[in-house]
Amino acid sequence: MDADFWIAADWGTTYLRAWMMSGATVVAELKSDRGMGKLRPADFEPALLELIEPWLAGRENVEVLVCGMVGARQGWIETPYMATPTAPGSPGAAVNAPVRDGRIEVRILPGLCQANPPDVMRGEETQIAGLVLEQPGYSGIVCLPGTHSKWVHLNTGIVQGFQTFMTGEVFELMSKGSVLRHSITDTGWDTEAFIFEFRATLANPASLWANFFSIRAQALLADTAPGVARARLSGMLVGAEFAAAGVAAADAPITIIGDEPLAIIYRDAFKLIGIEPSVVEAKKATLLGLCAARSTMKGDRT
Amino acid sequence: MDADFWIAADWGTTYLRAWMMSGATVVAELKSDRGMGKLRPADFEPALLELIEPWLAGRENVEVLVCGMVGARQGWIETPYMATPTAPGSPGAAVNAPVRDGRIEVRILPGLCQANPPDVMRGEETQIAGLVLEQPGYSGIVCLPGTHSKWVHLNTGIVQGFQTFMTGEVFELMSKGSVLRHSITDTGWDTEAFIFEFRATLANPASLWANFFSIRAQALLADTAPGVARARLSGMLVGAEFAAAGVAAADAPITIIGDEPLAIIYRDAFKLIGIEPSVVEAKKATLLGLCAARSTMKGDRT
Repeated sequence: MDADFWIAADWGTTYLRAWMMSGATVVAELKSDRGMGKLRPADFEPALLELIEPWLAGRENVEVLVCGMVGARQGWIETPYMATPTAPGSPGAAVNAPVRDGRIEVRILPGLCQANPPDVMRGEETQIAGLVLEQPGYSGIVCLPGTHSKWVHLNTGIVQGFQTFMTGEVFELMSKGSVLRHSITDTGWDTEAFIFEFRATLANPASLWANFFSIRAQALLADTAPGVARARLSGMLVGAEFAAAGVAAADAPITIIGDEPLAIIYRDAFKLIGIEPSVVEAKKATLLGLCAARSTMKGDRT
Repeated sequence: MDADFWIAADWGTTYLRAWMMSGATVVAELKSDRGMGKLRPADFEPALLELIEPWLAGRENVEVLVCGMVGARQGWIETPYMATPTAPGSPGAAVNAPVRDGRIEVRILPGLCQANPPDVMRGEETQIAGLVLEQPGYSGIVCLPGTHSKWVHLNTGIVQGFQTFMTGEVFELMSKGSVLRHSITDTGWDTEAFIFEFRATLANPASLWANFFSIRAQALLADTAPGVARARLSGMLVGAEFAAAGVAAADAPITIIGDEPLAIIYRDAFKLIGIEPSVVEAKKATLLGLCAARSTMKGDRT
């Protein structure tokens, strides 16, 4: 058996992703839709075992290192928030989750918080730690687009502060739950419509609130091609996010941590304002961050 | 029997309200939650009869005059939109709804549309017609707060243009469907929190997108009194609406058509920026508008 066998996991609100690891190498990968948002505290251990059972045959005390919303108050067990300014990834504050099965030992990493303005994150700090592992002393902005987009300011590898934008969640709510749902298709995209609304909202964020309903009215009064309404709403919301993040005034390097298609939509939006960001795949950043945390913990213990 | 017997109705997305009328006098009033949003075309006549049946005994050809979303494409029968600039309330374009029951004759009033920027309304035009009936030649802004708030510009009784804001709908979606639901109580209100966020967003609308998530983070990191989160979100959204409406720069008279508590929240928000609006009760405006439309139709016919 592999002496350096362990399990890395990213347990968010919607999904649980697990990787069978040999040192820093991924041996296998599994995914479940039993995100923390659907689970009560007693459900977490069974949900994890259900996914990783095939990897545990004949083993005991397998190290499982987890990041994400699983450490929230409504999660498996609450882990602390490390206050900014701080280095991302502080495995010393990891919390042991209560388990009955002797085959696993589960540790959950802490999140990050900022006192003023109040903000919190769980999971993204591990991705940022992965970026800093690859680019020691990173200074600049890290943009992590998603349900709750995070914009994180780092100076020489230290997180100075961050902002959360509910862009993805508001997009889902408005496109599926509001009157706009009658006009917004599930698929389809119109790049020109996105660019137009992104630029307009970035230039005049106050206009945002007046423009939402025009998506519905335009569809009622004129024939619009499929995908136009969807791209218009997205352009408005991403434009509002960029305006609020004050990115146009920033001259720091920008790195996007994310996956397609969102990472590409954001990268192209940055290009529209003359910024060429780097893009790091989310899974890669998460795994690097979990490996870094594990190394530190092993170092701590020796 | 009363020779001037008729039925007035306001049939919106959520509710159907009907009034038994004798000329311009309300004799009785009924309300049903069978809004047009829940009905297919064939359901409208039964839903109406279910409500007003008690008023129809021994009558035939009772005039029923209806305004609201019932005239939308997904409604009973589609009525046209009158294009701005136009006088509010154009009963000549009313459409007869198909009915089987000989006791009723149903006419649905048209809506209003604006080509650029694209916008539409159904129901509010009748309330505005009611206001103009009471204040002939009204010039100024009419603000109708609600699920979809409308801000309407009138000059000598003519609607010049209008803007729709999805403030009420986004408030409902975010407070009940987003991560903020964990922090927002169903009731409770903190006036100071509302005022703070209203002023902050009005002064700097770009900040809106950065502030939503702070409602959740503040609740996680600090104890906040019940009602604070609810009032904060409302203050942000109403502030964004006022900023987008450009109201601070307006020096026209402002009339709010609405009901408590929303009409009072908006009135107090206007007062914060030094504006003292008039407030007209929504039901009163609707009934006046329906009476005005009926008078015009009777005049048209003779």
